[in-house]
Amino acid sequence: MSKRIPYKNIKYYTFAENRDFILESGTAFGSITVAYETFGTLNEDKSNAILIFHALTGDSHVTSSYDDDNSTPGWWDSLVGRGKEVDTNKYFVICANLFGGCMGSSGPSSINPLTNKPYGSSFPFISVNDMVNVQKRLIDYLGIEQLQCVIGGSLGGMATISMMTNYPDIARSFIIIASAYKTSSQIMAFYEVGRNAILADPYYQNGDYYGKEYQPERGLGIARMVAHITYLSNKGMENKFGRMIQENVINEQLTYNRFGPMFAIESYLRHQSTKFIARFDANSYLYLTKAMDMYDLTQGGKKTLSSEFSKVNKKVLIISFTSDWHFTQADSWEMAKELASLGKDVSYINIESSYGHDSFLLPCKIQEGAIKNFLKNVGVYNETA
Amino acid sequence: MSKRIPYKNIKYYTFAENRDFILESGTAFGSITVAYETFGTLNEDKSNAILIFHALTGDSHVTSSYDDDNSTPGWWDSLVGRGKEVDTNKYFVICANLFGGCMGSSGPSSINPLTNKPYGSSFPFISVNDMVNVQKRLIDYLGIEQLQCVIGGSLGGMATISMMTNYPDIARSFIIIASAYKTSSQIMAFYEVGRNAILADPYYQNGDYYGKEYQPERGLGIARMVAHITYLSNKGMENKFGRMIQENVINEQLTYNRFGPMFAIESYLRHQSTKFIARFDANSYLYLTKAMDMYDLTQGGKKTLSSEFSKVNKKVLIISFTSDWHFTQADSWEMAKELASLGKDVSYINIESSYGHDSFLLPCKIQEGAIKNFLKNVGVYNETA
Repeated sequence: MSKRIPYKNIKYYTFAENRDFILESGTAFGSITVAYETFGTLNEDKSNAILIFHALTGDSHVTSSYDDDNSTPGWWDSLVGRGKEVDTNKYFVICANLFGGCMGSSGPSSINPLTNKPYGSSFPFISVNDMVNVQKRLIDYLGIEQLQCVIGGSLGGMATISMMTNYPDIARSFIIIASAYKTSSQIMAFYEVGRNAILADPYYQNGDYYGKEYQPERGLGIARMVAHITYLSNKGMENKFGRMIQENVINEQLTYNRFGPMFAIESYLRHQSTKFIARFDANSYLYLTKAMDMYDLTQGGKKTLSSEFSKVNKKVLIISFTSDWHFTQADSWEMAKELASLGKDVSYINIESSYGHDSFLLPCKIQEGAIKNFLKNVGVYNETA
Repeated sequence: MSKRIPYKNIKYYTFAENRDFILESGTAFGSITVAYETFGTLNEDKSNAILIFHALTGDSHVTSSYDDDNSTPGWWDSLVGRGKEVDTNKYFVICANLFGGCMGSSGPSSINPLTNKPYGSSFPFISVNDMVNVQKRLIDYLGIEQLQCVIGGSLGGMATISMMTNYPDIARSFIIIASAYKTSSQIMAFYEVGRNAILADPYYQNGDYYGKEYQPERGLGIARMVAHITYLSNKGMENKFGRMIQENVINEQLTYNRFGPMFAIESYLRHQSTKFIARFDANSYLYLTKAMDMYDLTQGGKKTLSSEFSKVNKKVLIISFTSDWHFTQADSWEMAKELASLGKDVSYINIESSYGHDSFLLPCKIQEGAIKNFLKNVGVYNETA
């Protein structure tokens, strides 16, 4: 019931066939399948591997460098690939679909091997730590003792924080981009609106809509629209759309087509929503956003940022963007400051940009240069050596 | 089909029975009913009247000072009433439900006298200028040549701007609060999400849901949730809710009740949504938000702020709030600056507040004092006279 996965080089690793994977909630679960792609060649001593976590709605296809015809763009083509700043001619890049997702890895739309039906509402609640524990199993399976780097933006940044604090020696370096160790009340509220739009859709059918005539597409579309606004910035939207009228709406229609697309921003959001519905699963959206909202490195104050970050013993790069109001520069600065005050080897870059949270996914010379330079100064690929 | 109006002192004025009210779109429409309340006594020379425009979801009940038992709070009780800063012992306050609304004035849920059925989808598109022209007719009907002041916040502020530029002599002063002469792309986008949530609700039935078994309540609820977030500020939400867990959700439920209310902010939004559904009409929400998004004093650049504001010849007070990101302090400042550069008698106050756009509706000594003082120095009620 998963959406068709268009990536021909995708691989699958399945484990915990005996239902012996213990989730953070205490529930035992299995089997678990991880859909992943690798790019480049793992060197002999397995020291050149980089793990990249995708964000909320991403997948394993981080680069199209290895596609025959480049027909399926990679979501981070600007940064990752042959000859790119994260150069797959040098590094062995691993990117896996997040546990709970809908692009090949086990998630609510996967077939439950015990029933031969999609999990739907029977899929258990999962956490960011669960997602990370699953990818740790993948790294073990690939026989990699220590990664060159773990990189992630947004939810992928949270996963990187989880990896860095739960498995501090898993990599020689960590890059956390446009992220935070917990979600703000405001952003949580917007995701809650999105979840409510899905839950309110009559075709949601308590999550067991797979194979039914109707799917909760409208609710999912609304959820995407509201989230998408939080990925842009006020200034960016003003620059790109302002109050521009959509060209194909002629004046005469303004009166009659009164709730149809009219302003360019309205048309754009509907377009984004339509594209998203075609590629994403409503249940995965519920599970992944809830896991993101729930993530809190300090566990609601039971622990402190200081106690958690004191576990870190490798190089860290933190990147934020000035106009990002989803995970703000203040969120990144708080982490960088804490790591620095603990005497950790942390670098922090706050990049001027009007593209909001989306900035980290867009071509950005400063980000690309910073990451390339950071990687050069970590471990095995020091070019001066 | 209107929701029950609980205000016993509400009055109705009906005009344009011959369908001769020309909307800004060119369409002739009628009849039109305005539901309004008045508070205090109109003096002999009819010089002490103040017109207050409500915001998007408000109504005529601006104060409960005249209720027998205060059972129905007024939406601006902190500012308006007997002995309040807008003192109804001195002023004759008029507040009418906006044209297109659902609290007594003509709107999509009203009965079309020609068919004896609710208008629904046959209600014409209306603009902010239309809303203002309707209230101008009410002022004429009440025999008032010149008001002491016109006051409005948010959409009511836009109506005040429309009144001030289309009828510059209708009042001796104008107070524009937490408003703008046009909506930003970002805020428009959030309202577009809300409208889409209503339009996507299967029970919307193309707007003709009155008297049907199901109403588009879920869509309307989603629309309210997303808008409500824009009425608060990030900091205000962090202070009030943060990542607080709702008290009645016990730990055991966290796993099972995974998409139910969990964080306090989630529970709060659902509560706001439920309250709103009980009092508001989905079609009115579509019409009024679209009119707000469409309002642009410069008509998309066909006119300039300068040319429009050059018509102003009375005292103006503009108030904004530092944490308001719906209509920002920059929006207010742009207007104040333009009026000042044109040599107009304008005062501008930017009030420090963490309550976001909602600030203007909350008790606020600075706002109340500024308005009282401003009114004192305009016309007939100079206390030193």
